[in-house]
Amino acid sequence: MHKLYVVGIGPGVYEDMTIRASKCLDACTVIIGYTVYVELIAPYFSGKRFLSTAMKKEIERCHMAFQEAQKGEKVAMICSGDAGVYGMAGPILELSEQYPDVQVEIVAGVTAALSGGALLGAPLTHDFAVISLSDLLTPWNTIENRLEMAAKGDFTICLYNPSSKKRADYLMKACDIVMQHRSPDTVCGIARQIGREGQSMTQLSLKELRDTQVDMFATVFIGNSATKIAGDHMVTPRGYHTK
Amino acid sequence: MHKLYVVGIGPGVYEDMTIRASKCLDACTVIIGYTVYVELIAPYFSGKRFLSTAMKKEIERCHMAFQEAQKGEKVAMICSGDAGVYGMAGPILELSEQYPDVQVEIVAGVTAALSGGALLGAPLTHDFAVISLSDLLTPWNTIENRLEMAAKGDFTICLYNPSSKKRADYLMKACDIVMQHRSPDTVCGIARQIGREGQSMTQLSLKELRDTQVDMFATVFIGNSATKIAGDHMVTPRGYHTK
Repeated sequence: MHKLYVVGIGPGVYEDMTIRASKCLDACTVIIGYTVYVELIAPYFSGKRFLSTAMKKEIERCHMAFQEAQKGEKVAMICSGDAGVYGMAGPILELSEQYPDVQVEIVAGVTAALSGGALLGAPLTHDFAVISLSDLLTPWNTIENRLEMAAKGDFTICLYNPSSKKRADYLMKACDIVMQHRSPDTVCGIARQIGREGQSMTQLSLKELRDTQVDMFATVFIGNSATKIAGDHMVTPRGYHTK
Repeated sequence: MHKLYVVGIGPGVYEDMTIRASKCLDACTVIIGYTVYVELIAPYFSGKRFLSTAMKKEIERCHMAFQEAQKGEKVAMICSGDAGVYGMAGPILELSEQYPDVQVEIVAGVTAALSGGALLGAPLTHDFAVISLSDLLTPWNTIENRLEMAAKGDFTICLYNPSSKKRADYLMKACDIVMQHRSPDTVCGIARQIGREGQSMTQLSLKELRDTQVDMFATVFIGNSATKIAGDHMVTPRGYHTK
């Protein structure tokens, strides 16, 4: 049986990978991923063969990974963050039925909701929803409905892919939907370039977030109705203090 | 300035911790946490002073951590999974204003939604909601409303604390709410004792999940309307194949 690992490498820096992920990459002969992530980790894994494809070539990259595994290579497909959260574990497993001689194993990693949350404080200490604003593969009305339901459910909301050149006004639209059910003063946060050079974070109100231009390196957090600022941090109480 | 780290150790096994978390614990002199987690990691960090309190003594544990830091110790408060997701980062940051001479830093980890997801396949490849069924600190009607909104939004739903002795029928109630908006044949999964001895996973339909008794070591996944079985795995498609 051939073996293909799908490995979440965390936000980017080597230290934010799990020990399991690092050992797995050490044991592999071929590491495949989007160019940016391959470049981030290559210095830590010398002697490996690195393969990459451009963004939006995910399916080609998946087939490449399976085919390398079938040649007898021990292959790792890497993803930023977690392997599952909007990651390559999904498409790899969907294609796995075409490659019955390749066994797939998923290695979890720290997704941006967690690493960005740690940077801002503790926004996710209570129930939360993760929503991608990218409509490349999802109809915008599905996204709108999810924003509305997450707002009505008073979930802390973590937004992935909050913006791109083509979608400059999507975050504004998202905030308008949430603001129909939540105060404009709701505590929000932006984590940018998490764990990488240029890392930054911003705390602001939902009203301010609406009028803020973010880029594709940002992960956005909209607090629930109880989220507050404690010291310098964005914190969603779980309720311990009220008991 | 004194220093207190809040460190997510992942599902339990040493290898599932991030390299950053491991280095942080190595550099600390005192490690504080719930007894079970302290016992899990103690063998890997010899020479440390380990302190623990029983479950439900979270606030005492937080004060203990701050006070040790004030004595000049380098302190790590450990949590299973991520430090933020229903973790101690929240209460620690809420209390931090009482200890202005202690600087708090959060170290993220792999929460059960991710580690359990990796075990089951890729249930979280699209938008998802994380909901705790514990009503110790949350009114049950808030939980019910969140379940309903998550179901209406067609989120994949990850349930934490799906059961306990006092709450034997909560998962059944939760499934009944979701089933008002989602097919009884929806693909679901249970991940148990993730990354620990006795680890197991089960795939089943929403209808079957409703009539299944789970324990407090389980994390439950309810797929969205597109979630399917691919090979042996639970997979929520992101949509790559339809483009």
